[in-house]
Amino acid sequence: MSPVCFAPDSGGGGGASTPAPWGETKVVGARLPRVDAYERVSGSAVYTLDLQLPGMLHAAIVRCPHAHARVKRIDTAKAETMPGVRGVLTGESPGAAIPWYQGREGPLSLLFDPHCRHEGEEVAAVAADTALQAHDAARAVVVEYEELPFVVDPDKALAPDAPKVHDWGNLLGQPRVTTRGDVAAGFAAADAVVEMTFRTPVQMHTPMEVHVSVAQWDGDRLTVWDSTQGVYAIREALAGALKLPLASVRVVGHYMGGGFGSKLELGKYTVIAALLARRLGRPVKAALTREETFLVAGNRPSNVITLKAGAKRDGALTALEARLSGPVGAYPTSAVSAYQIGDLYTCPNVKFETTNILIHAGKARPFRAPGFPSCNWALEQVVDTLAEKLGLDPVELRLKNIPTVSQLNDNAPYTSTGLARCLTEGAVAFGWTEARRRPKTAGHLRRGVGVAAGMWGYGGDPNATAIVTLYADGSVNLNTGASDLGTGTKTVLAMVVAEELGVAPDRIQVEHADTATTKFAPSSGGSQTVLVNSPAVRAAAIEVKRQVLEIAARQLDKPVGDLAVADGAVVVAGAGGKRVPFSELKGLGERRMLVGVGMRHPHPEGKLALPFAAQFAEVEVDTRSGAVRVLRVLAAQDSGRVMNRLTFNNQVFGGVVQGLGFALTEERVLDRATGKMVNANWHDYKVPTMLDSPAEAECLPIDPHDTECNTVGAKGLGEPAHIPAATAIANAIHDAVGVRPLEAPVTPARLVALLAAQERKG
Amino acid sequence: MSPVCFAPDSGGGGGASTPAPWGETKVVGARLPRVDAYERVSGSAVYTLDLQLPGMLHAAIVRCPHAHARVKRIDTAKAETMPGVRGVLTGESPGAAIPWYQGREGPLSLLFDPHCRHEGEEVAAVAADTALQAHDAARAVVVEYEELPFVVDPDKALAPDAPKVHDWGNLLGQPRVTTRGDVAAGFAAADAVVEMTFRTPVQMHTPMEVHVSVAQWDGDRLTVWDSTQGVYAIREALAGALKLPLASVRVVGHYMGGGFGSKLELGKYTVIAALLARRLGRPVKAALTREETFLVAGNRPSNVITLKAGAKRDGALTALEARLSGPVGAYPTSAVSAYQIGDLYTCPNVKFETTNILIHAGKARPFRAPGFPSCNWALEQVVDTLAEKLGLDPVELRLKNIPTVSQLNDNAPYTSTGLARCLTEGAVAFGWTEARRRPKTAGHLRRGVGVAAGMWGYGGDPNATAIVTLYADGSVNLNTGASDLGTGTKTVLAMVVAEELGVAPDRIQVEHADTATTKFAPSSGGSQTVLVNSPAVRAAAIEVKRQVLEIAARQLDKPVGDLAVADGAVVVAGAGGKRVPFSELKGLGERRMLVGVGMRHPHPEGKLALPFAAQFAEVEVDTRSGAVRVLRVLAAQDSGRVMNRLTFNNQVFGGVVQGLGFALTEERVLDRATGKMVNANWHDYKVPTMLDSPAEAECLPIDPHDTECNTVGAKGLGEPAHIPAATAIANAIHDAVGVRPLEAPVTPARLVALLAAQERKG
Repeated sequence: MSPVCFAPDSGGGGGASTPAPWGETKVVGARLPRVDAYERVSGSAVYTLDLQLPGMLHAAIVRCPHAHARVKRIDTAKAETMPGVRGVLTGESPGAAIPWYQGREGPLSLLFDPHCRHEGEEVAAVAADTALQAHDAARAVVVEYEELPFVVDPDKALAPDAPKVHDWGNLLGQPRVTTRGDVAAGFAAADAVVEMTFRTPVQMHTPMEVHVSVAQWDGDRLTVWDSTQGVYAIREALAGALKLPLASVRVVGHYMGGGFGSKLELGKYTVIAALLARRLGRPVKAALTREETFLVAGNRPSNVITLKAGAKRDGALTALEARLSGPVGAYPTSAVSAYQIGDLYTCPNVKFETTNILIHAGKARPFRAPGFPSCNWALEQVVDTLAEKLGLDPVELRLKNIPTVSQLNDNAPYTSTGLARCLTEGAVAFGWTEARRRPKTAGHLRRGVGVAAGMWGYGGDPNATAIVTLYADGSVNLNTGASDLGTGTKTVLAMVVAEELGVAPDRIQVEHADTATTKFAPSSGGSQTVLVNSPAVRAAAIEVKRQVLEIAARQLDKPVGDLAVADGAVVVAGAGGKRVPFSELKGLGERRMLVGVGMRHPHPEGKLALPFAAQFAEVEVDTRSGAVRVLRVLAAQDSGRVMNRLTFNNQVFGGVVQGLGFALTEERVLDRATGKMVNANWHDYKVPTMLDSPAEAECLPIDPHDTECNTVGAKGLGEPAHIPAATAIANAIHDAVGVRPLEAPVTPARLVALLAAQERKG
Repeated sequence: MSPVCFAPDSGGGGGASTPAPWGETKVVGARLPRVDAYERVSGSAVYTLDLQLPGMLHAAIVRCPHAHARVKRIDTAKAETMPGVRGVLTGESPGAAIPWYQGREGPLSLLFDPHCRHEGEEVAAVAADTALQAHDAARAVVVEYEELPFVVDPDKALAPDAPKVHDWGNLLGQPRVTTRGDVAAGFAAADAVVEMTFRTPVQMHTPMEVHVSVAQWDGDRLTVWDSTQGVYAIREALAGALKLPLASVRVVGHYMGGGFGSKLELGKYTVIAALLARRLGRPVKAALTREETFLVAGNRPSNVITLKAGAKRDGALTALEARLSGPVGAYPTSAVSAYQIGDLYTCPNVKFETTNILIHAGKARPFRAPGFPSCNWALEQVVDTLAEKLGLDPVELRLKNIPTVSQLNDNAPYTSTGLARCLTEGAVAFGWTEARRRPKTAGHLRRGVGVAAGMWGYGGDPNATAIVTLYADGSVNLNTGASDLGTGTKTVLAMVVAEELGVAPDRIQVEHADTATTKFAPSSGGSQTVLVNSPAVRAAAIEVKRQVLEIAARQLDKPVGDLAVADGAVVVAGAGGKRVPFSELKGLGERRMLVGVGMRHPHPEGKLALPFAAQFAEVEVDTRSGAVRVLRVLAAQDSGRVMNRLTFNNQVFGGVVQGLGFALTEERVLDRATGKMVNANWHDYKVPTMLDSPAEAECLPIDPHDTECNTVGAKGLGEPAHIPAATAIANAIHDAVGVRPLEAPVTPARLVALLAAQERKG
């Protein structure tokens, strides 16, 4: 017998070499419904929020109601005697003095910090028999605050007399400047130059499932069920916070209701659940209320972006210069990004400066393509304006500047760039030329079309390990550490196994996202899930297939080369070839199961594999009310191979709708007088509903048949599907009514004001 | 990088060759308390019986109260309207017509068979909100039976007019005869011949945790928590019964409270829980009551054994001839065994015949060394009697006949036979010679000593796969499919990792006994757990160590040969050698974790690795009451390497006490008038308590330093620790009072009768 395991990176050892890329596939790419669709729609799926453990208590968190305050005194006496209350936790409780937010010189904050730097900061916590009892008791905790001056307006935060968020001031690092070539020379060589200043909103993640953890101790070992995007990241942070060995912390994240980046890091609620569970000897669930998530679960920071661009008459960009700044809250873990300005288009002369400003508000956190939609909002409106100035079709100008290398990464070549095809084929599918020719006006309702391109800049973690196990009856277990945020990860990875092993997807069970039972997979974020894990899963399946064929070759007395797998059987080559179901392979039965371990094949050294997109939108603007309806969207996506056409569509439509929210409706509003968020709920914070969504949305996958990016040919999708959506709508609005919506969201009030100003200008 | 995986059976591939046997060990062999001791003694461990799931229902089973009956009518109307009742299941329910007991020509019975062949057979089941409601409702199910004639006395079951258990009659197969040499010639050559007939009891398994399953469906996938000895065996049987793919059935068996063989196979209660859970859309727990376990959870069949033995003057055995029969119930999965008569001693002429008799009673099931204690009861009393006849010391006679090959297996050599050392070193440690010389009489209290040897005949399943994962902070996850019945499997396997990887056992977490998250391990039975799984675990740990050293060699720029692991660090050879904790290995951090997969190394082809034992007992017999007190026991055990001295002792003492029960107190009593068990509870069925246990019990491990049996040097222990215990007590009784207790258990009544007969004979 040969080794049980496959290792792609073996140097002449037992592992196979890198497998050949797929050509035509049978299962991969199909419109396969989710393998867990029944559970998800029937309500039988147990999300972390649904989890009930015997004896489980419920936590509620006492939060600072001020934008900036110092806790002077906490009186928990009343709360402790309230019905059902089992315990109260404050910063003074044993083991609760846990350092939290890390600054350059170490932690700057505590789990329960008496210095509260934003509304909603954690002050104490209560555990009670029911969630309502816990919230009642949390309200009964008496906290005496010294209110402090605050700053929530980024435009004022850098003033010398502005209240400081942290000791060193309100700048997170110094403004960072990136340059390439000579922008002055570039602008001098330009036939047209445009400069504009844009404002983008603070957008909230608002996943369907709120942030929630359940903690349970078993001796010195901690198990946490967490609604997370990455069980391994949470485990590492949690073990660090509680000073436990990694092996003693188990993080499980099964059914999960979305994250969009806000569930990549450890939440204080998770640590609070663990501390209460340890103290009280019972499992504890800590679930944020919807309202709490708006205050503490993170956001996409707003940006102010001034962008100047120059181009030759033919559309070739000569220079791009930008200043970007944004308020990243009090404890940021995300920042503004000018990546796309540097890399979406070929441009020899580029300069950009990014500034991250601290304010007394909830933290910036990675949010679906951190920095990219904001940056795109500026870049793709400026490019459109340049096209207008030069009398070029917006698609034409973009096609003039298609990159084949990453200028921000030493001109490393892309394994593929489908951007030109996204633009040209997208334009055809959308009917771009015809639509541009149509008259804009129909009374007060005006229609317009817009396009925006985009790219995403992350190629994924180099590590991922998967285990595939074939059982004696031909059914399969797929073991992967990857989280499925609701995007279909389980389905796609099962299809990879089905493709390679020739078994039906419904005979494949997926064990996933559990640090005690799976091997490492990076967090499901950065659009890396499919491209990082699929090659690992494929490698594991190939190793199992190798063992199957070896066993079959012995049983059938045929060379391995004459054998293949299909439909749960080994098939002998040639007409009328014999077919032996896996369940009849004696050697498989004897060995009980065959096990293959696979690891990721990172993309080829010196090259980058990144996805591109071009999205087209048609809108109807009501010039009386300022209301914008998005009539239709076509999203042309170069994300490499389509793994599952249904999940592909879902990702794209979701990205488009979230972009629609960014463009038209979503915005955190902070009250300048109190520093408090005034729309911290789903009534006042406007997430698009089905009624707001485009009536028509089409998804056009552009597959460049990339055989270099990895062994499955897939690139990232979740983020590039979202990045250009808002800007395509902005450009369509401009096309419809002739005003340039510099500030997002383009609410009716803002658009009416723009139209009024246009009318005044005449 | 080289392959992630280790495969012992690789042919020149990436796997290492068979690792060298251990010499001195640092961790293995130590007196390490259980890694899960806290959870087990604090009550925080969740056994299947403790498991509570949200919305979980409780099942109760309607059972036939007759030894033999036909169900004519079932009326569930009343039960269905009782408080809390959610559903009633009968053989008529959809999907419940499941074939059950397999005969030679297919299934002979159904899950709910209208033809009930023993008291307690399953007739219907109820699910309700609470267990008490379910039992109330089960009692309210009206079943009309046609009572049928029955036979529960094995001595009468083969009479031509005996009621038949199955259509073909009451013999399970034909009596099987095994012969070697010429017994007639052997007896002719003997200087002494002894022939006796023995009777052994039906012994009940009585594990602390009753038989229990919890079933929960997630779509078409079934998860069952089961108090089982082998999750993979249960999965296979359950998938077969419900016609599900193996991958769709998950069986989890975490904390587990004993089995002794009665939890090796699928129980009807498990299938009933699954069917009710599917029908009602809620989890269902089916736990047998203690009383039910006596009727349906299996037993060790009683045996009638006539054994004739001949020996030369010097003690060399010349012939052994035996007839063994036993009643194996209505649906047996275990049978009588004469293995020890054929193989414990070197004997050229052997003949034995085994007969399995069906009766209208609960099934025979494997029970701690199936057949061996019963057979030992006969063999080792006969050997003692021979020694007496020949004027030899019982130890001396046994030493004359030590085997080095397995005569029942084509004279395959043993990798080691520690039997002679068990006898000689055991005798010294026990003070055998001195004790035999001591006067027997002290008024009505007489003391005596006895010895019995034993062996166990199973070398374990060839398959077992383990996965060891080292995390970036130096803590470890051990993944094994093995069940820990309470015997310390998790502890022993963690020690193997600790030994090989140089990490403290408390930094190793064990994920085990879950078919969705682990790879195959055979059931924990047949004394195979340690010897099958330890080599797999060791191989996995060695592979991880190999990767660690390779990473360290690069980081430290040293040859791998200069490096070793100890105390969670890589240590450079030489005085003052550098020490790099695993957590500081950059390559480990980058790769997030190192994974090693290991498989069992089966013992060398053509050889057998089997354990041996000799146990010595001293008893005190009260000749007035017939009560026997076991004063002390010394158990000399050749089970190869002692993996953990505490768990070793525990296994041995448990085996001895269970043997004491067999010898003195335990016996199923069936009422001949009704065929019903009259002592189906822990009050009337006498399991030894602490007060009955030997005041002094010593365990003497005999380690033959077997480097061939496998890569850890351990042989089986659980069963050989139990096999000779009862007979050593019987021989001690004979030594004390001069009567031969042919029938077990040697109850006071029986012993008084023997003493009275002896007195009459004068």
